[in-house]
Amino acid sequence: MATPVTNRRRSRASRAGSWIGRFPAGRLARMTTPSISRFPVPKLEDLPEDVRARIVEVQEKAGFVPNVFLTLAHRPAEFRAFFAYHDALMLKEGNLSKAEREMIVVATSGANDCVYCIVAHGAILRVYAKNPFIADQVAANYRKSDTTPRQKAMLAFALKVAQKSAEIVDEDFDALRAHGFTDEDIWDIGAIAAFFALSNRMANMISMRPNDEFFLLGRLPKSK
Amino acid sequence: MATPVTNRRRSRASRAGSWIGRFPAGRLARMTTPSISRFPVPKLEDLPEDVRARIVEVQEKAGFVPNVFLTLAHRPAEFRAFFAYHDALMLKEGNLSKAEREMIVVATSGANDCVYCIVAHGAILRVYAKNPFIADQVAANYRKSDTTPRQKAMLAFALKVAQKSAEIVDEDFDALRAHGFTDEDIWDIGAIAAFFALSNRMANMISMRPNDEFFLLGRLPKSK
Amino acid sequence: MATPVTNRRRSRASRAGSWIGRFPAGRLARMTTPSISRFPVPKLEDLPEDVRARIVEVQEKAGFVPNVFLTLAHRPAEFRAFFAYHDALMLKEGNLSKAEREMIVVATSGANDCVYCIVAHGAILRVYAKNPFIADQVAANYRKSDTTPRQKAMLAFALKVAQKSAEIVDEDFDALRAHGFTDEDIWDIGAIAAFFALSNRMANMISMRPNDEFFLLGRLPKSK
Amino acid sequence: MATPVTNRRRSRASRAGSWIGRFPAGRLARMTTPSISRFPVPKLEDLPEDVRARIVEVQEKAGFVPNVFLTLAHRPAEFRAFFAYHDALMLKEGNLSKAEREMIVVATSGANDCVYCIVAHGAILRVYAKNPFIADQVAANYRKSDTTPRQKAMLAFALKVAQKSAEIVDEDFDALRAHGFTDEDIWDIGAIAAFFALSNRMANMISMRPNDEFFLLGRLPKSK
Amino acid sequence: MATPVTNRRRSRASRAGSWIGRFPAGRLARMTTPSISRFPVPKLEDLPEDVRARIVEVQEKAGFVPNVFLTLAHRPAEFRAFFAYHDALMLKEGNLSKAEREMIVVATSGANDCVYCIVAHGAILRVYAKNPFIADQVAANYRKSDTTPRQKAMLAFALKVAQKSAEIVDEDFDALRAHGFTDEDIWDIGAIAAFFALSNRMANMISMRPNDEFFLLGRLPKSK
Amino acid sequence: MATPVTNRRRSRASRAGSWIGRFPAGRLARMTTPSISRFPVPKLEDLPEDVRARIVEVQEKAGFVPNVFLTLAHRPAEFRAFFAYHDALMLKEGNLSKAEREMIVVATSGANDCVYCIVAHGAILRVYAKNPFIADQVAANYRKSDTTPRQKAMLAFALKVAQKSAEIVDEDFDALRAHGFTDEDIWDIGAIAAFFALSNRMANMISMRPNDEFFLLGRLPKSK
Repeated sequence: MATPVTNRRRSRASRAGSWIGRFPAGRLARMTTPSISRFPVPKLEDLPEDVRARIVEVQEKAGFVPNVFLTLAHRPAEFRAFFAYHDALMLKEGNLSKAEREMIVVATSGANDCVYCIVAHGAILRVYAKNPFIADQVAANYRKSDTTPRQKAMLAFALKVAQKSAEIVDEDFDALRAHGFTDEDIWDIGAIAAFFALSNRMANMISMRPNDEFFLLGRLPKSK
Repeated sequence: MATPVTNRRRSRASRAGSWIGRFPAGRLARMTTPSISRFPVPKLEDLPEDVRARIVEVQEKAGFVPNVFLTLAHRPAEFRAFFAYHDALMLKEGNLSKAEREMIVVATSGANDCVYCIVAHGAILRVYAKNPFIADQVAANYRKSDTTPRQKAMLAFALKVAQKSAEIVDEDFDALRAHGFTDEDIWDIGAIAAFFALSNRMANMISMRPNDEFFLLGRLPKSK
Repeated sequence: MATPVTNRRRSRASRAGSWIGRFPAGRLARMTTPSISRFPVPKLEDLPEDVRARIVEVQEKAGFVPNVFLTLAHRPAEFRAFFAYHDALMLKEGNLSKAEREMIVVATSGANDCVYCIVAHGAILRVYAKNPFIADQVAANYRKSDTTPRQKAMLAFALKVAQKSAEIVDEDFDALRAHGFTDEDIWDIGAIAAFFALSNRMANMISMRPNDEFFLLGRLPKSK
Repeated sequence: MATPVTNRRRSRASRAGSWIGRFPAGRLARMTTPSISRFPVPKLEDLPEDVRARIVEVQEKAGFVPNVFLTLAHRPAEFRAFFAYHDALMLKEGNLSKAEREMIVVATSGANDCVYCIVAHGAILRVYAKNPFIADQVAANYRKSDTTPRQKAMLAFALKVAQKSAEIVDEDFDALRAHGFTDEDIWDIGAIAAFFALSNRMANMISMRPNDEFFLLGRLPKSK
Repeated sequence: MATPVTNRRRSRASRAGSWIGRFPAGRLARMTTPSISRFPVPKLEDLPEDVRARIVEVQEKAGFVPNVFLTLAHRPAEFRAFFAYHDALMLKEGNLSKAEREMIVVATSGANDCVYCIVAHGAILRVYAKNPFIADQVAANYRKSDTTPRQKAMLAFALKVAQKSAEIVDEDFDALRAHGFTDEDIWDIGAIAAFFALSNRMANMISMRPNDEFFLLGRLPKSK
Repeated sequence: MATPVTNRRRSRASRAGSWIGRFPAGRLARMTTPSISRFPVPKLEDLPEDVRARIVEVQEKAGFVPNVFLTLAHRPAEFRAFFAYHDALMLKEGNLSKAEREMIVVATSGANDCVYCIVAHGAILRVYAKNPFIADQVAANYRKSDTTPRQKAMLAFALKVAQKSAEIVDEDFDALRAHGFTDEDIWDIGAIAAFFALSNRMANMISMRPNDEFFLLGRLPKSK
């Protein structure tokens, strides 16, 4: 089986190269490939087969490997649990649209000042919402975003879970029910906020760097 | 196969009965079995086999089923990922003792005002540390706890991950290395704090109630 | 007259000895008697007669001398005022039950992260409420405690006095009156919260250590 | 014996009258005597003899009765303990000057947004320090006040006791010792901050109003 | 043309001299002229003509030169924009009285702990309101100030702009409209709070010192 | 003279049209032109000549009129002062590069959750820095941005001015001097942070919406 990401550093440098080549050297222009984690990033060929397969799969689908896969693969057992949890929340059936789930991720990651999650999930949100503006709005202040009152209520609850979960009371559930959310929807909202409380902290601790690709993804009309 | 927890409500009531029976009825004395979650708690016989097996196993080992198993079983896929993550962090080999890992849980759960995690993991900490005082100290203020300077440094980092992870800088890593922690130890510390950021938020959202057993566990010399 | 606490260090060690003896030496097991204050603790025989009498009285009643008496006796004039204030609030007639007054102490001490007051008054609360669970609940998060809506309103006001008293407005009084509290009850609630704002800060400053006895008190059915 | 404050409302109105008379009626000009407490203020003749004696004494000395005496007299037992505590801290011998003790009161009352204590103790600070500027500076931001580095260290510790006492560690004591403070001085500093944590909360809860006299006291060269 | 403030240090010393002379030398008594800024304060004759003219004008009107003029003159272009902005907000026509505008300044400066603005604008507020008490009340806690419910609503909005402007929602506008404020009034309130967010930060950064004159201004019946 | 922006709403809709046209109608897709301010936006022909000239000038230079010009033109006197202040700080000579000044704007606007300023100045930062990644990094967490240690020190000071300016002490100046900043540079840094404290609050209060153009600007290699 091929191992398409054997040399992460080279492939990233070549992807970013077009930028560096076209810009005259500004003082901030990147001369070397920046680290994507404070911890060692494993080589693809050194990973357990299932972890590697997951990474190859995402690369084939997305065209690149999001750094969260490469950096968390440093601990395969945690990697497996992390993505199993992620998939259980983000890929499950339910009343929340995919874009709405990503709104929750972006809003709470903004509250937690997590560069990786804001940038990476901001890109996914733009794609799912087919809206190039929504992610930057929600990351900064959902109250000023192009979202519906129902979505604003959803994000208010998600931020309460993210920031002061001990203060959640029955009235918070009632407020969501008044917008038509079922209790299962509320679990989804809260659980996504809770899972990214974990994800944001891991990314901040290991200083996970977003892939260059995410910054532009979903911003151009032609992008998928 | 036997299903030893088929009737959660009855079994809990009988366990707590000794208390209620012996106390004259104070104004706070519990007359009814309190809810252990805002969400439905599945019956054991309705659960997927692997989830049920895990629950039976913990009951046989602990003598009762901690409510985190019953309440999170409402979502089997999330249940599996949650405990896989938990085990990957709490049962793995490493330089942190089991008591130290529980200290991290108790300190960060204290910061997040999570009744379930403070009480349940406080019990586990008492047992592992063979110390009936440590959990209440660490839950309230690790600076005033019977811990070593090395453990206090560990808890300071864990609380920074729990409360302001965006401000983690290289100097925080240096401070732990000065106490002899390896980078893998630091990942363990931060990842446990991050995982319980998730766990605390879930418990707060669903209003998870600690089992009566936890309150006393590890407080008496003869207790295991 | 006998001076039953002449040698504080020895007597504490012997009280705690049963624990240490029965536990195999864990890494956290206590080898030496820990300090109960950052400041000198006077010998009983060196104290003014009235201060000594108060201490002897409490020992005869409780079976041990809570460390708050020993540590604050370092300053007899302040000791007298402190306990006069305490008694004026905690022993007076009024509509608040003794358990309810201790709930206020435990909830606000939890907010102030005061190990001594959480542990010592948690014990007293368990005894008064004849409830082994209530103190740990209230210390962590009163919203998730086995208390009535009226008691939760009481604790919400107490915490507002403890944490942002400048924001108290007439509406806060109205909310309590709606639960049947009189204005004198409200003074009681606020004054207890205010007094323990003092007490918590003193305990935190001098690093007052709770007696070992408090950790278990009120947790067993047979305990008084 | 004369009861010089039998009619609080009238006497206050007459004291304030000079102001109202001389100002043309601005829209904020006071037309009625404002309440000095949310709770009933007792008449002097209804008070226990010792409480009344204390009030008469302060009136003779200061020329008016500070409202803290009148409003707290609503609860004589608490009144006695409050002023016994106050006197034990503020009138005792020690290395802190009277002005320095008042600085602590003003700085921590500023942090607690307590109108009564800022205004009343600001006046006392001006008088003791013989400095018409110091109180307004310290109430707003001690870092910008005309105080010595030693006094700024004292105020930093007092504010830590007032605002985050759980975080006090041995290094905080060392920092004060480096400025020549003894451990007894440190107790004084911390205890004053702790006592006014109580006082500020009581004043905020009952909405204690500062006497008009305090606003100008100590601002004019000739004032006592 | 005369340059009446050519020697700032001397003139300030002589103004303050009466105080120093009349007070026996307390330990806080000022022996030297304190700095009014961390940055150089230009001499009047070195300033551009328009800046100098503005300063001369204010001196003739007020009898002294507020230090904000002297300290900000270090940067003439910013000086011009600052006072143009100030005048556009504070001198314009509108429904807010001059005293109300200064209330906004004092309340938000209190929240930002800005010594200069609290003291200087507190003086102006006393003069405009013809009320010697209002400024100290509003600086500490507007909820306890002698203001109308309408003014308290105004100050609540101003403080929200000052402290958590991202959370402003349409309901905040509705609350002000319910008190009769027009949308133009609301812009005025918010813009004054926003402008002093700038002003407070500049004053805090450069450590701007209030003139001695401001402390007493508007406190005596005869003062204008 | 031509008035190129006479019909703001139409022109914005047509600019955004390409997006809306090419995306299949997602649930978030914009059907109507959103408001750019809570307050009326003046027509260009109704503005004073100097204000209009400024707007025409910026349109000719940028190709569109940033909404800050249109929304603040509601108050011409404030508009003039605002942009005079802006230009005095952002266009002046000095040691800070244009990109560094915009970093300060983006970092402090991120701290203030100001959607307009993050998006608009993020675009300008990308252009000046010739770096498509820098703005999203700095808005979320400057510690994880591709900036030099010197720039990180600059941003730490700017954020202290933005968030807790009262705590600025001489040591903060020393820390910047250690990186080679002059005192004039420090004024620049602090004044830019202070000015955008004003700007962020105005934008949040009026709910200023960023132009669609800003979201993409500076993200593509060919863009200037």
